[in-house]
Amino acid sequence: MINRELVDPQSIVIVGGSNNVQKPGGKIIRNLLEGNFKGDIYAVNPKETEVQGVPCFASVDMLPPVELAILAIPAVSCPAVVKLLASEKSTKAFVIISAGFAEETPEGEKLERQILDTVNYYGASLIGPNCIGLMNRNHRSVFTLPIPDLNAKGVDLVSSSGATAVYILESAIGKGLRFNSVWSVGNAPQIGVEDVLEYLDRTFEPETSPRIKMLYIENIKDPDRLLLHASSLIRKGCKIAAVKSGSSESGSRAASSHTGAMASSDLAVEALFRKAGIVRCFSREDLTTVSCVFTLKEIYGRNFAIVTHAGGPAVMLTDALSKGGLHVPEIKGEKTLMLKSELYPGASVANPIDILATGTPEHLEKAIDFCEKECPEIDAIAVIFGSPGLVKVYDAYDVLHRKMEECSKPIFPVLPSVVTAGKEVEYFLNKGHVNFSDEVELATAVTRVCNASKPTNEGIELYGVDVPRIRRIIDEITEEGYLSHYYVQQLLAAAGIQIVREEVSNNKKVLLRKAEEIGYPVVAKVVGPIHKSDIGGVVVNIQSKKHLAFEFERMMKLPDVSAVMIQPMLQGKELFVGAKYEPRFGHIILCGLGGIFVEVLRDIASGLAPLSHNEAFSMIRSLRAYKMFRGVRGEAPIDEVQFAEIIVRLSTLLRFATEIKEMDINPLLATSQGIIAVDARIRVKK
Amino acid sequence: MINRELVDPQSIVIVGGSNNVQKPGGKIIRNLLEGNFKGDIYAVNPKETEVQGVPCFASVDMLPPVELAILAIPAVSCPAVVKLLASEKSTKAFVIISAGFAEETPEGEKLERQILDTVNYYGASLIGPNCIGLMNRNHRSVFTLPIPDLNAKGVDLVSSSGATAVYILESAIGKGLRFNSVWSVGNAPQIGVEDVLEYLDRTFEPETSPRIKMLYIENIKDPDRLLLHASSLIRKGCKIAAVKSGSSESGSRAASSHTGAMASSDLAVEALFRKAGIVRCFSREDLTTVSCVFTLKEIYGRNFAIVTHAGGPAVMLTDALSKGGLHVPEIKGEKTLMLKSELYPGASVANPIDILATGTPEHLEKAIDFCEKECPEIDAIAVIFGSPGLVKVYDAYDVLHRKMEECSKPIFPVLPSVVTAGKEVEYFLNKGHVNFSDEVELATAVTRVCNASKPTNEGIELYGVDVPRIRRIIDEITEEGYLSHYYVQQLLAAAGIQIVREEVSNNKKVLLRKAEEIGYPVVAKVVGPIHKSDIGGVVVNIQSKKHLAFEFERMMKLPDVSAVMIQPMLQGKELFVGAKYEPRFGHIILCGLGGIFVEVLRDIASGLAPLSHNEAFSMIRSLRAYKMFRGVRGEAPIDEVQFAEIIVRLSTLLRFATEIKEMDINPLLATSQGIIAVDARIRVKK
Repeated sequence: MINRELVDPQSIVIVGGSNNVQKPGGKIIRNLLEGNFKGDIYAVNPKETEVQGVPCFASVDMLPPVELAILAIPAVSCPAVVKLLASEKSTKAFVIISAGFAEETPEGEKLERQILDTVNYYGASLIGPNCIGLMNRNHRSVFTLPIPDLNAKGVDLVSSSGATAVYILESAIGKGLRFNSVWSVGNAPQIGVEDVLEYLDRTFEPETSPRIKMLYIENIKDPDRLLLHASSLIRKGCKIAAVKSGSSESGSRAASSHTGAMASSDLAVEALFRKAGIVRCFSREDLTTVSCVFTLKEIYGRNFAIVTHAGGPAVMLTDALSKGGLHVPEIKGEKTLMLKSELYPGASVANPIDILATGTPEHLEKAIDFCEKECPEIDAIAVIFGSPGLVKVYDAYDVLHRKMEECSKPIFPVLPSVVTAGKEVEYFLNKGHVNFSDEVELATAVTRVCNASKPTNEGIELYGVDVPRIRRIIDEITEEGYLSHYYVQQLLAAAGIQIVREEVSNNKKVLLRKAEEIGYPVVAKVVGPIHKSDIGGVVVNIQSKKHLAFEFERMMKLPDVSAVMIQPMLQGKELFVGAKYEPRFGHIILCGLGGIFVEVLRDIASGLAPLSHNEAFSMIRSLRAYKMFRGVRGEAPIDEVQFAEIIVRLSTLLRFATEIKEMDINPLLATSQGIIAVDARIRVKK
Repeated sequence: MINRELVDPQSIVIVGGSNNVQKPGGKIIRNLLEGNFKGDIYAVNPKETEVQGVPCFASVDMLPPVELAILAIPAVSCPAVVKLLASEKSTKAFVIISAGFAEETPEGEKLERQILDTVNYYGASLIGPNCIGLMNRNHRSVFTLPIPDLNAKGVDLVSSSGATAVYILESAIGKGLRFNSVWSVGNAPQIGVEDVLEYLDRTFEPETSPRIKMLYIENIKDPDRLLLHASSLIRKGCKIAAVKSGSSESGSRAASSHTGAMASSDLAVEALFRKAGIVRCFSREDLTTVSCVFTLKEIYGRNFAIVTHAGGPAVMLTDALSKGGLHVPEIKGEKTLMLKSELYPGASVANPIDILATGTPEHLEKAIDFCEKECPEIDAIAVIFGSPGLVKVYDAYDVLHRKMEECSKPIFPVLPSVVTAGKEVEYFLNKGHVNFSDEVELATAVTRVCNASKPTNEGIELYGVDVPRIRRIIDEITEEGYLSHYYVQQLLAAAGIQIVREEVSNNKKVLLRKAEEIGYPVVAKVVGPIHKSDIGGVVVNIQSKKHLAFEFERMMKLPDVSAVMIQPMLQGKELFVGAKYEPRFGHIILCGLGGIFVEVLRDIASGLAPLSHNEAFSMIRSLRAYKMFRGVRGEAPIDEVQFAEIIVRLSTLLRFATEIKEMDINPLLATSQGIIAVDARIRVKK
């Protein structure tokens, strides 16, 4: 729970406050004072009566009532101090920066639990332990540097790791990024990343709340809540960029050695972010660059104009934008002649618009105006303007500043001369702008933003799925593990997924009669064993009664075989759809073209249940093999709409049958009569 | 031609020299003076007798003899000045920074040609026009800032674009990168990127020459020479990183609007760089980061240890290294206990080794020593050490410095606190080191370096290829365009590539007799038209004499059909091999699995002829579908060795038949009797 006392305290005590600013307890006071904190500040330190000009008490019980307490004392002393403050000093918010808790030892974990019980009992907030603290426009309760520009239009940063938050700030400051708040949640026994996000969502005010959120997450504890509040914020007009580290196998080990938390499967994270509309980043640079893109005007299309006074960077930018699926279209027609006549000879107006190294601020202005006013085909403008060090470029940056205010299209400033024109770049940033010093990093970030999904806004698709029947079937099942053939059929039928006709019998005569009804050729499979083909339990293309009789007799002698099942022999393109239950995330649905596409090329799309039709289509279309759906090399096209329907229905089935931990429909055949499940496996754990 | 007067002049004149350092002619003199140029400096300027303390002459003819002339005057005046200096003042080297030549107008192109003729006639060097100049440890003949630290162990930078060179320096300086020389070649009528590389190769001294080269190239004019000297330098122990911009379609347009040069096909560039062993980069940041990796000790394996005092960055680094195919293996066993006992409680030693935020310089030293001495499985060490701003970290950086000198394994410093610990980072850089401020950028660069090819060191593979016969066939061919069936067969036979048996006739009786010899089923194809299948000119699986007779009669009536060809009906997996002649680069060979892999998935590998067996194998193994070669889903494996042999032979054929502009062997069938060409097309232009 996040309360007013944590976010906007009237009084703060630093327990362990010190005159030594090389210690956390000293540095926090320094940061609070330098931030002109408006309320009262106290320190607790048995050796001092005043600390950095702030009244200091020998012990906690001597304090007046105080709203927020920051603890910079050894872990073992924390539980008692928290209890005393909460019970006797009306303290309603705690920031514990001390380490030595659950992240280190079982004893530390016990201390942490004691603290948690106390704060929960008294209805107080708790940030940390094992964090750098919290800073916002009201108070700078952190013991670290750098302190960024704290600004109502700035970014809200929430980080699992304190040091990473610090290093994200290091990367952000040079780019001109401003912050509204920085939350380092540490071990997060009470307030974690999801809680801060929920708080930002609940307190969001359309007129005044900042709109950019930056997350560094090592462990997603509550994916549902992350999804709910992230997508809610995005629908309210916010933009969220996030790094979820621990994506590789060794990466997970590193994350786990750090926070004592098990890392979530990366596929699930990918699917969750896509569903929420979060832009996924993979480094601090990436995160801060994407956030810089967020600060600019919305990009409504994919066509970029590049205005530059240097050729090379414009070419690299064009290459990188194109690689990301964005365009730098040629600007043609008579309108270009007018612009050309206003620039120096040799200037290029085809896009990139190269105003030449000698191009003036007036040229820059004309080129930007041209893109803004004369080129409806252009959606965004990147401006590259550095300095070779001959003259100052303040006037050019003034033009850029003015145009960024005036123009309706977003303008991306690429100011590469961070050394030579360092002062001018700083002057530009001080006007409230950001800078992309490397054009290709800009392109990578813009690409991520333009290619990110919108948050899914849809409820669960129920059409065609018989939920009560699904629940009846699941409740009826008594054993765990792989379901019998009968239940698999029942569940797919209840989900409205068409299954191939099957007949099962342990009586030869009955089976041969059923085969006549189905019509030859048929496929015969043993009933009982899981890995049927490994024991010779599957025979395809049985053309005659005689052959089927022979196979029946042979199969019934195989181990664990209780009966033989027959199906019509279907021809078609193999598809694949499967699902896996990921603890805390729910079901990850996978789909792809079967056969080599899944087995050799690992060409698989993933999504998080429940899925909407739009999501299913976007999964199908993200496959490398998507072209196959339209039919190539004389093959019939595959019915994309029906495939999407099956994916959606499967996801709905799973949402109402969380007991299903794993399932595959494989093969799912796209035949000339539609897409039909030929075989399926379902594993249940209650 | 690059001569001593250009590289190490005893005297320099700046024509257009000025007191105004906001003008190129003023700034160059300032840069030369600040660089303590040892020789004589003169200026030519009709308005002055002294410029910045340097003797100034009213006109060029008043000058004493001078070795190097830098021209900062209008383009139109340049040809006469060059002529006068070369003929009367013994000037043997020219740097022309003026623009307004071939890059702008046809008139400018004429001026450029006049200058070129003059310098060539007098055996003088020419850098530019339209460039920023040249700087090395002898003289700083550039009009731009920043001037990097010029150092004998520094990088040689060669750039097609002057502004890009400047911005590369901007990106390099903050990382601590040093330079030995910076060459901006401008329009490069005489000295281009290839020429500088040739010069660096020819003058390379194992004991003293710097070993890192950085290239920014907009247009590869002479791929053969680039390949020759780049691979030669790399074999001598150098490392080369390069950006070749203009890789996208719109990117090419940008490059071409900039230099007036046609961009080369990107596939050819990719193949050329791989063959040469050049590490390809795609941005300035990328280029300078890779060059920083080059400055460190060689990496002999793929196993990284990470020593850190912050968890988050270590996780992101692990993720990024793993993504690039490098490993952060768990460090296990009793040896870890010893290290653990020497660190603070809570420290992690499993790799990443987390010495905790409170970890001391001694802890850092112990952890590095542990990786160096106790862990033979570890090939390289990344050290992450920033500062939250409490204390100065000079002592930690001293440890890092010492360890980087002492240890045999390469150590990669990640010092993220560029703001808070800016002074300490600078102190560390001043000891001659580089810094990777973002751990993921480091991982990306290290990945590029570790995954780069070694330069090919092999001659042309001639085994099995009958070169004289190839030449006889090519010389015999009189017409251009697609070759007749007869010549295609002849050429493939001469290259030792097995072709399916074929019989051609316009006589029904003869054809039916041949079919008996081949054996049914057969395939029949029309002879004459190029796109046979479009007109119903291909029929497969002809089982009988009667059917063949019918098809013969039908086919002979189709337009342009001169005869009918029959082949045995082969079964097997489709492969693809093709080639295209890329002007200046030679033949690009493409290979892949046929069918959907090429048509839908664009899963194609490319190489530059002639190819060695190693290169052919590496092409095959780079295919996403490579697993298919081992046989999947019950299909027979494909003979990789024979496929590689065919690719090599094809490349040899093409190397000796450059008249072939395009060819495809499609399908090339991997049958149970080996890999056999079933159809081929060859287009010739003499």
